Amino acid sequence: MMNQITGKIVRAHGSGGKLTHELIQSLFVKHFSNRSLDELLDSAILKNPGGKIVFTTDSHVVKPLFFPGGDIGKLSVTGTVNDLAVCGATPLYLSCGMIIEEGFEIDRLEKIVISMKNAAESAGVQIVTGDTKVVEHGAADGIFINTSGIGVRNSKVQLSLKSIRIGDAVLVSGWMGDHEAAIIKAREEFNISADIVSDCAPISRLTQKLVNEIPDLRIMRDPTRGGLATTLNEFVWRQKFGIRIDEKSVPVRESVRGLCEPLGFDPLYLANEGKIVAIVGKESAGKTLSIMRLSPECDSAAIIGEVIDEPKGKVLLRTGIGSNRILDMLTTEQLPRIC
Amino acid sequence: MMNQITGKIVRAHGSGGKLTHELIQSLFVKHFSNRSLDELLDSAILKNPGGKIVFTTDSHVVKPLFFPGGDIGKLSVTGTVNDLAVCGATPLYLSCGMIIEEGFEIDRLEKIVISMKNAAESAGVQIVTGDTKVVEHGAADGIFINTSGIGVRNSKVQLSLKSIRIGDAVLVSGWMGDHEAAIIKAREEFNISADIVSDCAPISRLTQKLVNEIPDLRIMRDPTRGGLATTLNEFVWRQKFGIRIDEKSVPVRESVRGLCEPLGFDPLYLANEGKIVAIVGKESAGKTLSIMRLSPECDSAAIIGEVIDEPKGKVLLRTGIGSNRILDMLTTEQLPRIC
Repeated sequence: MMNQITGKIVRAHGSGGKLTHELIQSLFVKHFSNRSLDELLDSAILKNPGGKIVFTTDSHVVKPLFFPGGDIGKLSVTGTVNDLAVCGATPLYLSCGMIIEEGFEIDRLEKIVISMKNAAESAGVQIVTGDTKVVEHGAADGIFINTSGIGVRNSKVQLSLKSIRIGDAVLVSGWMGDHEAAIIKAREEFNISADIVSDCAPISRLTQKLVNEIPDLRIMRDPTRGGLATTLNEFVWRQKFGIRIDEKSVPVRESVRGLCEPLGFDPLYLANEGKIVAIVGKESAGKTLSIMRLSPECDSAAIIGEVIDEPKGKVLLRTGIGSNRILDMLTTEQLPRIC
Repeated sequence: MMNQITGKIVRAHGSGGKLTHELIQSLFVKHFSNRSLDELLDSAILKNPGGKIVFTTDSHVVKPLFFPGGDIGKLSVTGTVNDLAVCGATPLYLSCGMIIEEGFEIDRLEKIVISMKNAAESAGVQIVTGDTKVVEHGAADGIFINTSGIGVRNSKVQLSLKSIRIGDAVLVSGWMGDHEAAIIKAREEFNISADIVSDCAPISRLTQKLVNEIPDLRIMRDPTRGGLATTLNEFVWRQKFGIRIDEKSVPVRESVRGLCEPLGFDPLYLANEGKIVAIVGKESAGKTLSIMRLSPECDSAAIIGEVIDEPKGKVLLRTGIGSNRILDMLTTEQLPRIC
């Protein structure tokens, strides 16, 4: 059953029968191979890593499937790895659930599978269990990929909104908005010449360093859908503190700003797929910044603001001209299917 | 943010912004509420249950979404719970990843969410983390649901194909084919009057009993896509034994047989969503049968065959008229989107 398969996905690839087994063997087992997956049980039996179990899920419906800096395969691994990482966990195991439209080219599927394999290797995780469904032509748009992930967190790690104190520093690990800007560019409906590449990458090495070296690390998040503005609003929601950020200090590439302006997008609301927002004790801001800047693709990391007493539950933006305004959560969607 | 929401799903429900948070609060948190989920982190932080970790995933694309005996919500919980259960695990935690087509009625979504909640309660699992994506009208067919699951297995439990011996007994826990027959019936393209209801139900209580009370329990599987015939073929694939089953002893309802005949379907290939196939030592066959028959909906459990020496790697069917033929794995799909 290790034959090369070519051509297009047909319904019987999702039937659970012979063609499903052939697809699993000649694509998934071939590329993802590891002891748990190769057993081909409906579930993976895993060694218990000890510590706290961290569990997350993400479905990926990005359009187009291939974009500058990545594709749905890379994105589906990094998205889930990063959700585990910002919780202070070491990502260990992923599942892969694919919904494929009949007629999808197997060559493109293999490219996606190889991207997943590479991203998994780079993040140090194994894809240990999976599921493939095929729907008729027109019932899905190419391919959708769900990945769920299991990580382990040292029982002593306590990252929580409750640990945040007035005066704490707010940092981002690099340029904001690259991922969504790359997707905007990749959409055929826009005619944009700027050279913008998605930041799509696993961030688990950086988060592990911060967990180990910054004792007063309060909380981390990856500012994906809704961007930095939405993540900051999630931090302050119903809390007894606010956050003030300084617009000038938020790192945004000129190319991304230039792309946003004519389209009416705000870079603070653009999704990122390889960045973190962190809140740390004031005294650790400098050390946190140094650690971030030593990470790949993070040399423009910055301290962007601080935790304030009033207004509680709000994010205040000090604009370029020195005035303050409330930075709200995203209320409408800027662009659908960015991840 | 605990307002009642009504109307239809719009793209902004998947944006990660305000409407996404409103949807999460007023549907998912409202119905699934538990300590891990209510934290609303991107990942759930869970107590480590000890033992081996069992991990599985399943995407659900069933059509129609509501069918006699269940709906996509119930199915998405029981499918994943059952995958964990047949591995000998106690199912504990589920994730819920939804891909929803723009324009989907929120009332129908809430019905599905309530079904998931009820199925989760009945299986004793918590839905601890989730993700919601919205795609434009026409890019998906209503709703697709991925659930991934974590279970724990006592480190002493060893279910494996390697433990199977010649002479072992093969059992099924009840009527075969009810789920797929119910879906066939529910499809508008067929005009069928028979009263058939899906067997869709969690089987974790039965599997736990077998794990605890049958020391020579070799292996269990849930015969879903591809049905009993495919599961049996998975058991023997590349193994040094075969399986012979006796067609007359396989429990199939008259109504299911009657539905299959004119359509050219074989009940042995029809999917089940609340049944198990088990192989046990010959001496334990009777006790296993008694335990099965005491379980809800399993009063027609049966010993259907045995593990044989030759032909190796094949499933032999002794037909109603006493001849033997090879029962192959499903090669074409009988019906797409049954789960």
